Amino acid sequence: MSFDPATLTFDANGLIPCIAQDADGGEVLMMAWMNAASVARTLETGRVTYWSRSRQSYWIKGESSGHVQELVELRVDCDRDCLLALVRQSGPACHTNRRSCFYTALREGDEVEIMTPTE
Amino acid sequence: MSFDPATLTFDANGLIPCIAQDADGGEVLMMAWMNAASVARTLETGRVTYWSRSRQSYWIKGESSGHVQELVELRVDCDRDCLLALVRQSGPACHTNRRSCFYTALREGDEVEIMTPTE
Repeated sequence: MSFDPATLTFDANGLIPCIAQDADGGEVLMMAWMNAASVARTLETGRVTYWSRSRQSYWIKGESSGHVQELVELRVDCDRDCLLALVRQSGPACHTNRRSCFYTALREGDEVEIMTPTE
Repeated sequence: MSFDPATLTFDANGLIPCIAQDADGGEVLMMAWMNAASVARTLETGRVTYWSRSRQSYWIKGESSGHVQELVELRVDCDRDCLLALVRQSGPACHTNRRSCFYTALREGDEVEIMTPTE
């Protein structure tokens, strides 16, 4: 491919945030981090692959849970320091078994759970 | 309010990423950063207020351009280290005058501009 992930702007740890959005419904599912190699792997394999900061290793989303993210399109922002992945999400995106990680809303000063875990 | 922004998880610079999404159409508009005080200001004023890393100052979105973001709802993710702001965006969100900052798509290895500036 002619696109070179090295042309993106990475932070001091060599990472760039990537927002995953449901390609069909538009729901924002999660945000995680990628390094240049995981950007390349994501584009090559069509399977969204983050970099796990806690494990310091590639994180092929859904590899253990089966809750994979099939890449529909990867987009770059104006500053080239944030990515948006349009995905087809199998099952819940969140490790809490909720569809999205953003299941807590702030309403009138309180935290309100607006999504329940599946099953 | 009972919600305390200090309960969020901030990075080494005291910042947390905030994704802005159009509350009606669902479009992901931009991602920028907040510190605890800008989270509080956003909730108090209903005007999305980031922290500008380049200027090291509050960044009331649209204060100079008029392209304000009216907060509809702020959400917190499972790890409490990322925010999602549902907003009503006046005009373009991007400083390039495009509706969204994510106007560059990677298609078959090439960067493709999928949005044109307004006007």
